[in-house]
Amino acid sequence: MEGKQGASLYISVKEKLHDLIKSGKYALGDKLPTESELGQEYEVSRTTIRLALQQLEFEGHIQRIQGKGTFVSKPKIRESITPNLRTFVEQMKDLGLSSHSQVLELVVIPADSTLAETLHVEEKDPVVKLVRLRVADREPLQYVTSYLPWRVAPGLVNDDCSGSLFDLLRSKYEVNIYRSVESIEPVLTEEAISRLLGVPAGSPAFALESLTYNDKEQPIEYSYGIVRGDRFKFTMERFVK
Amino acid sequence: MEGKQGASLYISVKEKLHDLIKSGKYALGDKLPTESELGQEYEVSRTTIRLALQQLEFEGHIQRIQGKGTFVSKPKIRESITPNLRTFVEQMKDLGLSSHSQVLELVVIPADSTLAETLHVEEKDPVVKLVRLRVADREPLQYVTSYLPWRVAPGLVNDDCSGSLFDLLRSKYEVNIYRSVESIEPVLTEEAISRLLGVPAGSPAFALESLTYNDKEQPIEYSYGIVRGDRFKFTMERFVK
Repeated sequence: MEGKQGASLYISVKEKLHDLIKSGKYALGDKLPTESELGQEYEVSRTTIRLALQQLEFEGHIQRIQGKGTFVSKPKIRESITPNLRTFVEQMKDLGLSSHSQVLELVVIPADSTLAETLHVEEKDPVVKLVRLRVADREPLQYVTSYLPWRVAPGLVNDDCSGSLFDLLRSKYEVNIYRSVESIEPVLTEEAISRLLGVPAGSPAFALESLTYNDKEQPIEYSYGIVRGDRFKFTMERFVK
Repeated sequence: MEGKQGASLYISVKEKLHDLIKSGKYALGDKLPTESELGQEYEVSRTTIRLALQQLEFEGHIQRIQGKGTFVSKPKIRESITPNLRTFVEQMKDLGLSSHSQVLELVVIPADSTLAETLHVEEKDPVVKLVRLRVADREPLQYVTSYLPWRVAPGLVNDDCSGSLFDLLRSKYEVNIYRSVESIEPVLTEEAISRLLGVPAGSPAFALESLTYNDKEQPIEYSYGIVRGDRFKFTMERFVK
């Protein structure tokens, strides 16, 4: 280990442990040595080890289970950022995972001023609000709230929304989905949503905001999703022009 | 406000306040009403208001200054995710911001096994380690650690690295930068890095990992950056194929 002092020491220990996880020395599900064993191995204090493990846990590489020890977590789901719009169901299928949505709320509400502006409807116009927990292989992964102008899909409130929403919009409501504008921000999970996602409150996550348009440039869906940071990473490739 | 219960109540209040910030009702630098004033306005408890404000602060929309009050923060820097590789200096210039890097560390180290594998060099081969704090308009925004095979830029340790590293590699070392593979994860800022970035420890941030290749598919730089989540959001546009 390079000679490092004070606060950056635990970063160095964290990097070493992370390397051992990446290299497979510690594999999925393996139990890590105890804090005091690690302290002896790296010749640092238990406080330093604790900080290093805390950071590894924040980044989703390990999981600490009360009274049982520290274990190597599953590798993250890599979602490639490409210019192609693909549904959650399609993405999970590519990874060999079966997925569905648990519908938590499906109601019609009157548009407030922000929704009206976002969805190009009048204030108080009916808007469908759909709250879903996206699950793949029994694991809750994303908590997503969607808003759609009611006229886009008039019967949606009575539909089964446990599959792909976009597939349903296409097949039943003949919506020509064309493009979406998305943004990604890092957030900490709120308590209620953490419970649904099965993560500790205040875990790092992505907030994924998305506004989707049909081929006539009319907004058809606005959504705000909380994506588990311990289970997802976004990847991309860029080229020099 | 819709009739909501318990834990989701503060989310609803948070959304309302966020809407007022987005609409400009509360503008940049404006002071928000006090917790008890907001509690009266929204007919909820101070605890609910506090949770809502906490979430707004986590997401970087407001800033609470001890003894002074709560203020609307600057809007985030939107970094568009395009297939084009662009330097930090170029990105900031597009936004009308002048930028530079504060070099915190610039040394030659021997490659450990992970660096050797990543950079396609032998173990113990010399590698340049460069730690920079990227600053735009006097504001620290990113903390980036880069590793380059020494042979890519043999004199780099003695160079001025306060400008664009890629421009320097191109102009002085004739490196033909071709593409980079990047990944984004949400993390919480460590204490030492938080201090440098001027954010509270444990703030949500992006960890941006990047491996850049030249036109012969040789790795020329691996970097790991911590990007302030309260100042950056990534945006993208996707189309149906």
